Amino acid sequence: MAEVEYSPIGTIRTPFPGPKGMSKGPDARKASGMVEVLPGFAPGLQDLERFFRIVLVFHMHLSEGPLQRVRPWNDSRERGVFSTRSPRRPNPTWITVVRLERIDGNVLHVSGVDMVDGTPLLDIKLHLPRKKSTGGAQGRSNNGR
Amino acid sequence: MAEVEYSPIGTIRTPFPGPKGMSKGPDARKASGMVEVLPGFAPGLQDLERFFRIVLVFHMHLSEGPLQRVRPWNDSRERGVFSTRSPRRPNPTWITVVRLERIDGNVLHVSGVDMVDGTPLLDIKLHLPRKKSTGGAQGRSNNGR
Repeated sequence: MAEVEYSPIGTIRTPFPGPKGMSKGPDARKASGMVEVLPGFAPGLQDLERFFRIVLVFHMHLSEGPLQRVRPWNDSRERGVFSTRSPRRPNPTWITVVRLERIDGNVLHVSGVDMVDGTPLLDIKLHLPRKKSTGGAQGRSNNGR
Repeated sequence: MAEVEYSPIGTIRTPFPGPKGMSKGPDARKASGMVEVLPGFAPGLQDLERFFRIVLVFHMHLSEGPLQRVRPWNDSRERGVFSTRSPRRPNPTWITVVRLERIDGNVLHVSGVDMVDGTPLLDIKLHLPRKKSTGGAQGRSNNGR
């Protein structure tokens, strides 16, 4: 299969200088951060301020290379890597839902970050909970301010 | 910023030969499909069968190239691309939560697919709803069978 090549669209700024110092417990999700989108992509951010939560898709650039089995920090034994949150996956992407506090030009102020400072951002998506009634992933009104 | 290169870990098989024929309404999310993971990654699938829903991260290989502004099919005007579900984003990844029906070796049988047949799979993740009480994304028991 063909390789897939992506260019980061920005950088995520967080209080976490490296994976070692990161809280994995309840406090981890309270941290504030900034998403510095490259200025060239600023027009694509229009209308995003209507949403309360957004999804950051990013590259875990500090991942030490893939493993098939890993032992999660809160588990007693090894598991297949796809059933864990380990960064040591074949393609080390990650997805975090953050709260969008405000947008200043090409900078998003967010809370609920859990990635290290300097993480390359690949995409920003809407966080649209599935509605049972329709089964669809539309329904912007669910989430609009 | 450095480019990011990923190698697909498998292919997603669905009833949708191309984007034109895909339902965007309620029926879209009922379709069944198969995730053919490359055999070399089969060990990483262990323990995944304990989960009811999983997240497929994939590359929208038929995307026609990025736009800054797009008009969603259900909208009357153009919006910034990051506030839409358009495939025409700088890095055309997508994320779909599917129901994991069963695993046969390196093939996952799933329902709720909404991507075209032959879509390259980049990653498989757990679908772990955030618990309000902890704010964390752990809590496997929420979702285990």
